[in-house]
Amino acid sequence: MERNDGRANDQLRPVKITRHYIKHAEGSVLIEMGDTKVICTATVEDKVPPFMKGEGKGWITAEYGMLPRSAATRIPREAAKGKIGGRTYEIQRLIGRSLRAVVDLEALGERTVTVDCDVIQADGGTRTASITGAFVALVDALRHQVDQGVLEKFPVLDYMAAVSVGKVNGEILLDLAFSEDSVAEVDMNVVMTRGGKFLEIQGTAEGSPFDREELEKFLEMAGKGIQQLIQAQMEVLGE
Amino acid sequence: MERNDGRANDQLRPVKITRHYIKHAEGSVLIEMGDTKVICTATVEDKVPPFMKGEGKGWITAEYGMLPRSAATRIPREAAKGKIGGRTYEIQRLIGRSLRAVVDLEALGERTVTVDCDVIQADGGTRTASITGAFVALVDALRHQVDQGVLEKFPVLDYMAAVSVGKVNGEILLDLAFSEDSVAEVDMNVVMTRGGKFLEIQGTAEGSPFDREELEKFLEMAGKGIQQLIQAQMEVLGE
Amino acid sequence: MERNDGRANDQLRPVKITRHYIKHAEGSVLIEMGDTKVICTATVEDKVPPFMKGEGKGWITAEYGMLPRSAATRIPREAAKGKIGGRTYEIQRLIGRSLRAVVDLEALGERTVTVDCDVIQADGGTRTASITGAFVALVDALRHQVDQGVLEKFPVLDYMAAVSVGKVNGEILLDLAFSEDSVAEVDMNVVMTRGGKFLEIQGTAEGSPFDREELEKFLEMAGKGIQQLIQAQMEVLGE
Amino acid sequence: MERNDGRANDQLRPVKITRHYIKHAEGSVLIEMGDTKVICTATVEDKVPPFMKGEGKGWITAEYGMLPRSAATRIPREAAKGKIGGRTYEIQRLIGRSLRAVVDLEALGERTVTVDCDVIQADGGTRTASITGAFVALVDALRHQVDQGVLEKFPVLDYMAAVSVGKVNGEILLDLAFSEDSVAEVDMNVVMTRGGKFLEIQGTAEGSPFDREELEKFLEMAGKGIQQLIQAQMEVLGE
Amino acid sequence: MERNDGRANDQLRPVKITRHYIKHAEGSVLIEMGDTKVICTATVEDKVPPFMKGEGKGWITAEYGMLPRSAATRIPREAAKGKIGGRTYEIQRLIGRSLRAVVDLEALGERTVTVDCDVIQADGGTRTASITGAFVALVDALRHQVDQGVLEKFPVLDYMAAVSVGKVNGEILLDLAFSEDSVAEVDMNVVMTRGGKFLEIQGTAEGSPFDREELEKFLEMAGKGIQQLIQAQMEVLGE
Amino acid sequence: MERNDGRANDQLRPVKITRHYIKHAEGSVLIEMGDTKVICTATVEDKVPPFMKGEGKGWITAEYGMLPRSAATRIPREAAKGKIGGRTYEIQRLIGRSLRAVVDLEALGERTVTVDCDVIQADGGTRTASITGAFVALVDALRHQVDQGVLEKFPVLDYMAAVSVGKVNGEILLDLAFSEDSVAEVDMNVVMTRGGKFLEIQGTAEGSPFDREELEKFLEMAGKGIQQLIQAQMEVLGE
Repeated sequence: MERNDGRANDQLRPVKITRHYIKHAEGSVLIEMGDTKVICTATVEDKVPPFMKGEGKGWITAEYGMLPRSAATRIPREAAKGKIGGRTYEIQRLIGRSLRAVVDLEALGERTVTVDCDVIQADGGTRTASITGAFVALVDALRHQVDQGVLEKFPVLDYMAAVSVGKVNGEILLDLAFSEDSVAEVDMNVVMTRGGKFLEIQGTAEGSPFDREELEKFLEMAGKGIQQLIQAQMEVLGE
Repeated sequence: MERNDGRANDQLRPVKITRHYIKHAEGSVLIEMGDTKVICTATVEDKVPPFMKGEGKGWITAEYGMLPRSAATRIPREAAKGKIGGRTYEIQRLIGRSLRAVVDLEALGERTVTVDCDVIQADGGTRTASITGAFVALVDALRHQVDQGVLEKFPVLDYMAAVSVGKVNGEILLDLAFSEDSVAEVDMNVVMTRGGKFLEIQGTAEGSPFDREELEKFLEMAGKGIQQLIQAQMEVLGE
Repeated sequence: MERNDGRANDQLRPVKITRHYIKHAEGSVLIEMGDTKVICTATVEDKVPPFMKGEGKGWITAEYGMLPRSAATRIPREAAKGKIGGRTYEIQRLIGRSLRAVVDLEALGERTVTVDCDVIQADGGTRTASITGAFVALVDALRHQVDQGVLEKFPVLDYMAAVSVGKVNGEILLDLAFSEDSVAEVDMNVVMTRGGKFLEIQGTAEGSPFDREELEKFLEMAGKGIQQLIQAQMEVLGE
Repeated sequence: MERNDGRANDQLRPVKITRHYIKHAEGSVLIEMGDTKVICTATVEDKVPPFMKGEGKGWITAEYGMLPRSAATRIPREAAKGKIGGRTYEIQRLIGRSLRAVVDLEALGERTVTVDCDVIQADGGTRTASITGAFVALVDALRHQVDQGVLEKFPVLDYMAAVSVGKVNGEILLDLAFSEDSVAEVDMNVVMTRGGKFLEIQGTAEGSPFDREELEKFLEMAGKGIQQLIQAQMEVLGE
Repeated sequence: MERNDGRANDQLRPVKITRHYIKHAEGSVLIEMGDTKVICTATVEDKVPPFMKGEGKGWITAEYGMLPRSAATRIPREAAKGKIGGRTYEIQRLIGRSLRAVVDLEALGERTVTVDCDVIQADGGTRTASITGAFVALVDALRHQVDQGVLEKFPVLDYMAAVSVGKVNGEILLDLAFSEDSVAEVDMNVVMTRGGKFLEIQGTAEGSPFDREELEKFLEMAGKGIQQLIQAQMEVLGE
Repeated sequence: MERNDGRANDQLRPVKITRHYIKHAEGSVLIEMGDTKVICTATVEDKVPPFMKGEGKGWITAEYGMLPRSAATRIPREAAKGKIGGRTYEIQRLIGRSLRAVVDLEALGERTVTVDCDVIQADGGTRTASITGAFVALVDALRHQVDQGVLEKFPVLDYMAAVSVGKVNGEILLDLAFSEDSVAEVDMNVVMTRGGKFLEIQGTAEGSPFDREELEKFLEMAGKGIQQLIQAQMEVLGE
């Protein structure tokens, strides 16, 4: 069975990462994975949350939003509803944790990096695109701190990127578009380092439990996709 | 005294309107006025607010937002604060009123058009850029309704656009950038039709009251700028 | 065509300003413009908002509310809804800006004056009545500060007042009552100083765009009304 | 020991009830008890809360608010804080219960009366003044319903009023002013009918538990005060 | 007429107080009165609310909640609704006031005790059970402070407990179960000390005003019930 | 290195599941895993969320809360803060998804089961204990529906339970207590069916990325633990 856009099962959508997308931010990126487009910015501030004061360590946190018309049907604005929904919280916690996992928070010192991921057009995989793009924005913002002499040492420890895999109509697919994601039997988001280690695995059976063997295949395919994404990050970052 | 970007006092910043910017929306535009960039989308829904039910008329409403890092300093997300601020309300009420003023709401029937204006990069004049861009998104969305046979008659009555004028260091300037706006003695937003009539005038003395003669000059200059913006709208809309 | 209450087109409703209306406040006024009645109080506190600390300047801010039954139909309490609506925000921002425009904030020192305008009975023009009444409450509160020796210099620079004008059935009217305001084709609020200069102009075409000539007439009529209101302020303030 | 205002221990402050105070409301009252001033309005609507639909009975509910500068120190607006405080809830529940206790809710039919009590100046006893004033507003609103032919039968069963009593410096006092209330050892609010029966007793020991004998004296004194208040209600209502 | 559970009119339901119910809290109790079950915990913190700083006195505050399925019909979670309801506020204010009335706040020093009362199963009388149980948790938490040498003197001045009384079908009953409470003509909550003095009386006529004679009977019966509850507290506290 | 409580690395804490814990709920359980104690109730209602109306399918949703003093340090009540935090949302979404994965939602018909998981004492693993306990409450509630003749067919498809695994000081441990969880290098929650298939895997590297080999070990250990938990469920459910 062919995918809607003719991709092979283990093929990523076209990836495009544009750096310096927003002029005000220390780090800012537009990441496009097919029709999914996310603006990621990284802001460095000289403060930490109250519970971390005096510990000599930094913090990285993420916020996520979708423009109302990023989706096929208009999504009511969370600001207008007066509260952030559960899905948004879940995603921003995932982005934040993933980024923190590759940063030496002590080398960051008592600073907070806030990464904002705003989806301007959504076609599946917004959380994984956010992570992959946010990493580049983070690198730019922290390189800027090093260049300014604020940080002595560049505190990012490793490359990382994220991708989704899933089972659709019994087939295992990489980088699901919305039309695939919405009928997936299994949906899994994987975050890995350049060295192929896991930072996060979040797999959910949507109606069809999966076994160990299938899990192997999901992870195998995710791993390959992530290495390609890291390649794209390295190219755009000039390495 | 020369302006930061070398413009003449009565000169607009470069204007660029990109139609069909977001694939999901019936009408969607990226408007750029210099470094100010706003995504405007128009969504048509077959319902009206409760207070208008059964009156056979439509409604046009606007929502406005700024991405956290659209500004030089990160703006806390209104969704995270759990409420919309006064400035946001003021702006979205202005956009909504201005658009309604050029639409035949009876010809629209019991439908609501929600126009979302999301600032991705801010450099002054976001509310006037939003109005100018929203008009184009609105036209596209309503033309689409006519093409689909949903509307018999195209309900937009006239072209309209908006621009800011102000007094800075005693000089009257058109289309203020942020660096000008933040030190302006008078700040005025004007919304006009193609025929040169006023839809909205909002003028504020920031520390220096202005007289009738100055008002004349503000309106003269705004009028010229608006005609150029309407020219840009007409070109991009193929008229 | 005659107005409901038999007034001439350019005639204000009867104005009555009662000082010292609430015993606790440094400045407090009941302003009545026909059936519109607003309690305005001014409270001086020895602090400024965080963003102004250490600048040696003061701040003036306004809050506005309507008692639930000030209107013909009961208005749900904003406290019960848990948020302030867009119209309220718009009005309180207008009142605050207008008052700040006639006060020397440096002479005020690091103090905040909070002006509360609470409508106990509404019949159109509540925002302009609020501004006119708030000015008197502000003067009383700041005179009190001078009398107490807290302020060396009385920081109010000029008299000011506000009035509405509008076009109803093609006629230009001063000081619209609710029955006029609700069917107006153009609705304009003007804030001016004693010297006849503008502090704010907010004009809105409700269905019928207006031209430069009409604007002239609106402003002419508003100017005359405002001078009468300032006369009333001066009388009650004993000048 | 003499009271601040020279009253006898068992003496009410001067009571003044002004009917038809707000022109829009079916029933509206300004009640003054000394320097405590409360606007009470009663609004009748042809609907009941969801949990009462179809039961053929009506409902009476109350809301309470204080203008920010009704008190010696400015009280932040609950609308601005985005929530109603515990004290406000407690008071509006008390007012609502007390009024419902003297109304035949079946004779009211499926209608809701919302009583708004807004304190414009506070000097102790605002909740009891609210109840006493609200009763008169309620009577006026329901008489109006009878006059209009909406209600066949006047559904109010009995007169009622409320007063505070307390122990201050060991003395038992009626109708406490703020200066007394703030140092009271016991604080009690009593709501009674014309026939001398209790609708509500809320007594609180603030640091000094009270015994049965003292309770007798509190209730004796409250009873006398309430009969005088009911007398004032009857006079103003023309009975 | 017999009560549902066969109790005499002046008979309490079986009372069981389990100390040290939650391992983390300085004081924690499960109180059961028949089928009403409440977990009460007391937490001591070295801080006071802002309005009390520097006064050398402590504070005791209470919070109250019901698990969603503590009641026959699921109660929506207040956290999900985003606000605390009026009934909850009323109850937690009552618990806090009652506890403060038997504690020497100066002996407590600048510390806050927060008492949490969470109803896990409700069958009427949850507020009075909360007070009776909270007292024991408070004693345990403060004894712990004395044992730790934090407090020199045990600051609890007297035993206290609470019970409900009411009139149901014309009969006066002690300790109402939900099936009785929901049809009561009079509902009264009483908080008393071991010495038989009143800390709180909250009596409400639900449709049937009560007279002085009935009040006497309510208080007589409540007094007896409370002495039994205090007996149960003393036993479990080992006195 | 020995675990704090002397357990083997692959040993669960003592598990105790008490059915019918809350008398009002159709299904209710107290689950204890060591010192972690959670009350789980299941409520069946004859309605579905608006987005599912008319589809002939049911819905299962979960809510999660912690009593303020369930933890070593008092957690501020989410109801008092006026919003649910990100962690809570994440957990309740996980519980809901996991339960839905083993229920035939069509056999459930247009009904909603709301599962409430309230932690009364927390010592690590509250989300997995919630899932394991919630399953039993759900079975009881749905059996009750079958017994009542409401459901023709018992819609639960398979047993399921959840457990945590993690890496602490380089060792892989089953069912982490709080003292272990708070220093874990890897933290993973696994939800599996009786047949050993996965419903959810959520693994997070807290500072130390993990490889495929370690993942194998985590899943192996989790699988064994889950089978023991399912054994406990079956025993208590009488199978």
